[in-house]
Amino acid sequence: MAVSMIGFYHSKVGKLENETIYSLLVEAGRRTIEDSGLEPKDIDAIYVGNYSGGGFNKQEHIAPFAVEIHPDLRFKPCTRVENACASGSTAIEQAMLAIESGRIKNALVIGVEKMTSLKTAGVTEVLAMASYYPEEGGKGYSFPGLYAEYAKGYMAKYGYSKEELWDMLSYITVKAHKNAMANPLAQMHVEYEREYVRTIQEKNPLIADPLKLSDCSLVSDGAAAVVLTTTERALAIKDKVVEIKSLAHTSDYLSIVEGKRPNYKLEAAQAAIQRALRDANMTINDINVAEVHDCFTITELLIYEAMGLAEEGRGFEAIKNGDVYVGGRLPVNPSGGLKAKGHPVGATGVSMHVLIAKQLLGEAIGLQVENAKAGLTLNIGGSGATNIASVLVRIK
Amino acid sequence: MAVSMIGFYHSKVGKLENETIYSLLVEAGRRTIEDSGLEPKDIDAIYVGNYSGGGFNKQEHIAPFAVEIHPDLRFKPCTRVENACASGSTAIEQAMLAIESGRIKNALVIGVEKMTSLKTAGVTEVLAMASYYPEEGGKGYSFPGLYAEYAKGYMAKYGYSKEELWDMLSYITVKAHKNAMANPLAQMHVEYEREYVRTIQEKNPLIADPLKLSDCSLVSDGAAAVVLTTTERALAIKDKVVEIKSLAHTSDYLSIVEGKRPNYKLEAAQAAIQRALRDANMTINDINVAEVHDCFTITELLIYEAMGLAEEGRGFEAIKNGDVYVGGRLPVNPSGGLKAKGHPVGATGVSMHVLIAKQLLGEAIGLQVENAKAGLTLNIGGSGATNIASVLVRIK
Repeated sequence: MAVSMIGFYHSKVGKLENETIYSLLVEAGRRTIEDSGLEPKDIDAIYVGNYSGGGFNKQEHIAPFAVEIHPDLRFKPCTRVENACASGSTAIEQAMLAIESGRIKNALVIGVEKMTSLKTAGVTEVLAMASYYPEEGGKGYSFPGLYAEYAKGYMAKYGYSKEELWDMLSYITVKAHKNAMANPLAQMHVEYEREYVRTIQEKNPLIADPLKLSDCSLVSDGAAAVVLTTTERALAIKDKVVEIKSLAHTSDYLSIVEGKRPNYKLEAAQAAIQRALRDANMTINDINVAEVHDCFTITELLIYEAMGLAEEGRGFEAIKNGDVYVGGRLPVNPSGGLKAKGHPVGATGVSMHVLIAKQLLGEAIGLQVENAKAGLTLNIGGSGATNIASVLVRIK
Repeated sequence: MAVSMIGFYHSKVGKLENETIYSLLVEAGRRTIEDSGLEPKDIDAIYVGNYSGGGFNKQEHIAPFAVEIHPDLRFKPCTRVENACASGSTAIEQAMLAIESGRIKNALVIGVEKMTSLKTAGVTEVLAMASYYPEEGGKGYSFPGLYAEYAKGYMAKYGYSKEELWDMLSYITVKAHKNAMANPLAQMHVEYEREYVRTIQEKNPLIADPLKLSDCSLVSDGAAAVVLTTTERALAIKDKVVEIKSLAHTSDYLSIVEGKRPNYKLEAAQAAIQRALRDANMTINDINVAEVHDCFTITELLIYEAMGLAEEGRGFEAIKNGDVYVGGRLPVNPSGGLKAKGHPVGATGVSMHVLIAKQLLGEAIGLQVENAKAGLTLNIGGSGATNIASVLVRIK
């Protein structure tokens, strides 16, 4: 049984001073049900993707708060799923499985995170709990530090100098911010010159050598939500329909620093993308637009390789030859991505699904990729331990 | 498609000084796969029920750690679900839905919590995050305080004095500890006299008026796990099979103190039990054994009423007339329950499923209820906001 998306919502992303985790969740749920055309009573289950309501907001057990969206949701099953920064896509996966089980028809999926309630040091500490804490977070590794391990591993494996890496990554930073300029919901609306971001500057310091501030995604508040239903029902009630053609979820060792998995490629993410494409009977050449997990610029570089847009060690070619820009072979992160759109961690996977679906519907939030019929999302948790790739296809 | 249980594990419960959240998870997973007779490569997905690895252990994103159980689990989908103290049953629910979707055949479900890494004040603070924090935990309500609201609501609704309530609850405490004496995995092996627990004593102080220490469940470390598969496959490979005949999940307003839901009955828990019985084509009279969420003695009293063992306001009759003792009409918590077996919160729901399945297989952990063919679990999260009831049936 196939599952499609019939309702969408995406909040503004950023430091949302007037919003709480509660107001973000309720607004996202209410607006998405309205957008779906269903009545609240028609929602059979609610899934909430949230990374650390406990750490950021002293609120675990956030899922039943969805009952506040509408009294008709009382006694419906509400479930929180958490897989670090891939919590949102995991919530979509679980809702999809619930529909495919035949037990329910319609599910509301909300991704939400309120991070700016803590100061930067607190945010860093909460995020570090998504690493293998005894050997990583607990030994002083921040997430920039963990992805710096990939950057160092990549340089070592392929013989790049730091300056060469910085040059490659600068293209990715510039593209992200340029794309975000057109996205009204993006956290940052600032363009950068490559000459500025490819070197250390007073306002572009090293965060975790070799990663600079301009290589890091943002600390954000935000929410995104979808209503899922059977494709049969979606086709019956909607003029335009996007189906979840496939969704693949892979896990890997939690730790990157222990050396149990390579630090120069995203092996499990690659496996997820390959499975998602195989299950959709597609190759990467069939994909017209992608929103992927650029938590750091090095991550996006490695994702180009995981997607098969370039050979291993040559990811840079995908951006150098223009492929990943809007107008290119396969635009990547036309929204501005985690780097410039923002990264409310538990919401990010749902955000990606909303952004791609809206592209395929011709209603892009920000830059529209023309005639896009099929799109890819890749959502990563931790330093690559959780990986979820989806292929979304416009079927009507 | 029906789902059955083919592998089981239950750890010792208590202050497990030599165990970590990691060692508990890996041991539970390894032992359960062995018990199932499957090979690790046959496990298609792993679900982890855990309440607050972040709060207790600084470890969110615990699910992919399951890859450490065996290298053949690498690239399998690992998912953590969290619904407060009902996290374990939610994990079983999601694994069941995944199998019913037809996408997977075999799922490993692990419930795990390591609470004693914090001192009592820290544990109380982490648990308070399962309440509606702005109006409850953040205003000083502990979980004993929240369930004291039920105790006060119950006394007010039905006109009981505190002494009358204490008398009723004392029977429940005594039963729990008596049953736990036979359970080798239980945290406490101490019997109490009713005369002692029904009054305030030096070592039985008020915790949250009217609840005394003897009314409260324990702070525990522990893990439990099951392997689920299709009933078809279970029947093919096992001599004895327990099926999940039904599972019902209801949610309610997160807060009890705001007055949006009654404080003298467990309305959403009752709805879950009724749905589970209805879906199994049974009444409570068809159930031979139950493990239910006695996080406090008042909760078990209210559960008797939610189960239909007594009329509202008359729950006490179910224990006074002997129904809920081993040997009675419907033994409740023959394991000793959360009160005496212990309550490693994220593991508790899985523990209940293991305990009931083992009863039905004639391999009880502790007291055996003779000729039990059908059993009920009821797992509650927060102060009644999440409720999951299962009916398990021996089918071979």
